[in-house]
Amino acid sequence: MLVLSAIKNVKEDIRNRLEADFPELDFSFCHGIEEAKAELPEAEIFITYGEDLSDELIKQAKNLKWIMVLSAGMEKMPFSQIDKQGILVTNARGIHAIPMAEYTFTMLLQAARQGKKVIAHEQAHIWDRKVVMNEITGKTLVVLGTGAIGQETARLAQAFRMRTIGVSKTGKLKPYFDETHPSDNWKHVLSKADFVVAVMPSTPETIEFVKPEHFEKMPAHSIFLNMGRGDLVKTETVLEAVRNGEIAHAVLDVFEEEPLPEDHVLWEEENITVTPHVSGVSPQYQYRGFDIFSDNLERYLQGQEEFINKIDPKRGY
Amino acid sequence: MLVLSAIKNVKEDIRNRLEADFPELDFSFCHGIEEAKAELPEAEIFITYGEDLSDELIKQAKNLKWIMVLSAGMEKMPFSQIDKQGILVTNARGIHAIPMAEYTFTMLLQAARQGKKVIAHEQAHIWDRKVVMNEITGKTLVVLGTGAIGQETARLAQAFRMRTIGVSKTGKLKPYFDETHPSDNWKHVLSKADFVVAVMPSTPETIEFVKPEHFEKMPAHSIFLNMGRGDLVKTETVLEAVRNGEIAHAVLDVFEEEPLPEDHVLWEEENITVTPHVSGVSPQYQYRGFDIFSDNLERYLQGQEEFINKIDPKRGY
Repeated sequence: MLVLSAIKNVKEDIRNRLEADFPELDFSFCHGIEEAKAELPEAEIFITYGEDLSDELIKQAKNLKWIMVLSAGMEKMPFSQIDKQGILVTNARGIHAIPMAEYTFTMLLQAARQGKKVIAHEQAHIWDRKVVMNEITGKTLVVLGTGAIGQETARLAQAFRMRTIGVSKTGKLKPYFDETHPSDNWKHVLSKADFVVAVMPSTPETIEFVKPEHFEKMPAHSIFLNMGRGDLVKTETVLEAVRNGEIAHAVLDVFEEEPLPEDHVLWEEENITVTPHVSGVSPQYQYRGFDIFSDNLERYLQGQEEFINKIDPKRGY
Repeated sequence: MLVLSAIKNVKEDIRNRLEADFPELDFSFCHGIEEAKAELPEAEIFITYGEDLSDELIKQAKNLKWIMVLSAGMEKMPFSQIDKQGILVTNARGIHAIPMAEYTFTMLLQAARQGKKVIAHEQAHIWDRKVVMNEITGKTLVVLGTGAIGQETARLAQAFRMRTIGVSKTGKLKPYFDETHPSDNWKHVLSKADFVVAVMPSTPETIEFVKPEHFEKMPAHSIFLNMGRGDLVKTETVLEAVRNGEIAHAVLDVFEEEPLPEDHVLWEEENITVTPHVSGVSPQYQYRGFDIFSDNLERYLQGQEEFINKIDPKRGY
């Protein structure tokens, strides 16, 4: 049975462990789809980031029974052809929760405790004990999006003794949230927020979900962080909120245009921190992705029907 | 009954709340001991940072029954005279736990995730997604000192799914530690450490507690943080460990000489981060200190014998 991977640069220890754990299988680790293509018709299992498949390739993959997508993004998957051929699809949903929650606390602590100013003082050899380092402990965090990433963020927030308020489409209560509100009635929670963290997926309903009227409700000392999608809020809206003093600071990891152009005004804005869409990047990414694959592979070989993160090709999620 | 405070700049809301909660008492909030001195002979309760008292002043304080020290440092208290007059002493032990644990995670996240480089890229308008941001999640943390600060640090570490190893004089297991080792036999734990955080008190035994042989045991990727006492380790020892690549980074908040001189070599060392003895500084300090006082005041007025953080003047702690 051929297990074909189009994932570039799979770490050697991951390859070795798979081969040792499943000696009965043939593994072929290719550097991208161009290299993998030739073997696709023979493969029973295919591992991909989900951006390199087409109807044509799926049609050629006569023996393919399972596609493992090593990411959470499924927008480029040729689902109707996959569905026609009855191929199982699983993905790595949830893999971003840990790095994105860690990113959140790195940036909230940096912004609240004036990390940039502390570093500037160090660079200038200034011993200044008067920089106000606001604590995050005990504060109130509003999280837009209560999925795996929002929950992991709220879990850490509760460890910091924070009050956690979630906002989601249905408003259904989720683990690690003290309260949750539906996205058609959430504006009133903003006046309590010390921090607002956005991790909403991009759907037609979340485009420009955060509007000027929302920043007007946030306290002047509050910090806004967006690591979900760049189209959740207009750049202009964030800029105005910061410039008008409606909020104290904004941390942005996603933008309407990426990469953010070198001459973009956001780079220089004093109370905005820009990071280059890295909240989900992690040195552990491949390890965690292949751990999910490995668990599913065991189930597959045992003939089980239950898989981690099984995707319905008809719905695409 | 006169309650006299020598604490400078007590926040108005704290003063108002005390006066509202205890209307039967006379409060006098003075700006330091020079101003407070004249009223000391009348006071039954005295609030101080513990650095402004002398045998002479205690002798004059004929009506004094209770001294609340709004800090954890008791080195300058004239305990023998206090003991002679049978005065109750309480302090604010534990007040540094929250800010110092928050400081720890701010700095570990900054160092592990290359915060300085990310900020430098932002300042140069560079969109670079390749900076390696190592996670702290799931790593191993060694904490030197397992008191209130060490425990709060370990508690947050466990929330980040870290393995927590404590080192203390007795090696007695304490909350939030997975294991604890005595300070006469701890070198062997260092090879497992991703992070080593020192919060040991200054006693004759902890002077130069961390020696070159300890850094030699730590992994090359490890990060060392000292926020306890400057004499725990020689500056020269840390410098050599970093320069020899025995550890990846050191974060220092305390020094053999403070303030750190402007021309000190530490400021410019690439893999050392210097902060100006701020780990225990918090905008919440007065609130937390007076909260302890307020709880104790209620007990005092009810004639109770049990107090939060009661100090034995004979032992000084």
